[in-house]
Amino acid sequence: MTYTLVLLRHGESEWNALNLSTGWVDVALSEKGRAEAVAGGRLLADKGLLPDVVHTSLLRRAINTAAIALDVCDRHWIPVARSWRLNERHYGALQGKNKSETLQKFGEEQFQLWRRSYDVPPPPLADDDEFSQVGDPRYAAELGGPGDDLPRTECLKDVVERMLPYWESGIVPDLKAGKTVLVTAHGNSLRALVKHLDGISDTDIAALNIPTAQPLVYRLDESLTPIVAGGEYLDPEAAAAAALAVANQGKQ
Amino acid sequence: MTYTLVLLRHGESEWNALNLSTGWVDVALSEKGRAEAVAGGRLLADKGLLPDVVHTSLLRRAINTAAIALDVCDRHWIPVARSWRLNERHYGALQGKNKSETLQKFGEEQFQLWRRSYDVPPPPLADDDEFSQVGDPRYAAELGGPGDDLPRTECLKDVVERMLPYWESGIVPDLKAGKTVLVTAHGNSLRALVKHLDGISDTDIAALNIPTAQPLVYRLDESLTPIVAGGEYLDPEAAAAAALAVANQGKQ
Repeated sequence: MTYTLVLLRHGESEWNALNLSTGWVDVALSEKGRAEAVAGGRLLADKGLLPDVVHTSLLRRAINTAAIALDVCDRHWIPVARSWRLNERHYGALQGKNKSETLQKFGEEQFQLWRRSYDVPPPPLADDDEFSQVGDPRYAAELGGPGDDLPRTECLKDVVERMLPYWESGIVPDLKAGKTVLVTAHGNSLRALVKHLDGISDTDIAALNIPTAQPLVYRLDESLTPIVAGGEYLDPEAAAAAALAVANQGKQ
Repeated sequence: MTYTLVLLRHGESEWNALNLSTGWVDVALSEKGRAEAVAGGRLLADKGLLPDVVHTSLLRRAINTAAIALDVCDRHWIPVARSWRLNERHYGALQGKNKSETLQKFGEEQFQLWRRSYDVPPPPLADDDEFSQVGDPRYAAELGGPGDDLPRTECLKDVVERMLPYWESGIVPDLKAGKTVLVTAHGNSLRALVKHLDGISDTDIAALNIPTAQPLVYRLDESLTPIVAGGEYLDPEAAAAAALAVANQGKQ
């Protein structure tokens, strides 16, 4: 028995296009992002890799990427589950800030530390900041959300810690039921999951980039260990080019 | 304690625009239909009527109407449930046929009998017809669907009978939990639900038309009886005009 897991990072958002740090700010897909989602859905259809269930974050760029891709591969009708635990990393006080300006203001070393270190979060976002999520009804404790304890900033370690309970309780049961599971989420929540699946060290995860809207397939054995380490992109050449573009973000 | 239920018929589909009978054929929204869904979502936002959960059919014109409207009113993140029991009436051998041609071929009396009688279904659709749903994975018995017993044609009475179990087991529990419930479905599955809610007779239901993409709000008392019979449209004038257009379908 092998299990099939498909990871899909959302397409370009309006703030990706503007080079702003986004985090938990709920921005829309750009036109390019919508086209990327269509292309991702076509790849799923062409390879016959049809999801039986989809899990998304609570952010519209992931929700709409899933909806578009599933519509294209004729799986719009499958069950949907969503969790705040699949959200992007909270970028703290950097949310809403231009990445190039942050780079210039704080320097390459500090920028890369916030961007790629495993356990150094950016400064926290103030609760009265226009880009704070405090009070957003989708994170209410009654809905199983973090409530007042929602993050004000996160490092990747924090993302791993809040994501893993959903992996165990929400996603693994679907895999063990034999379903092809699609997880549509974000650069850092997917890096957190890949780190767990492939047993990547806290240091090595810094170099791992996940390209937008490129379906990444993991076949897992009964112990949920990847049969091919790192999984397999449905379009390896396009994925490699896209990952390189992600790695260069923030640079001129 | 009153419960809040919002009904939303999908926007215009590509086949509505072509005047073809659709039924269970899974056609897309037209551009106009997408714009209608946006307008429906704006009405929900303007009136502060924000759904906590959405139920849809398994057909993309309802699924995408819900996704668009919920995105517009910033409720894209709410839980989603879907059921084949909310599907449009199966139109039997008329599926894929031009409504005006059906009217001319069979005459006004037969056309209206199939269209509006409570218990006279059109002739069944052959399993090898290009518009048959036999074998469609979304209706598999393992997923709680009808499996091989899926309808080959339906009258409104059939729709009431297959819709009501989902009302009782899927929708009522959400209402009783105090949630504002959005049901995004079809002309005839919503007529079936309204018939049940308002206790409309088998004869009188013939004259009831539900306009596309006009949110219809029912406040229900503890016994699930409408506080205002027939519910209330958020935009009554637009709803009346749109219902008249539905009533005239098939006419020149």
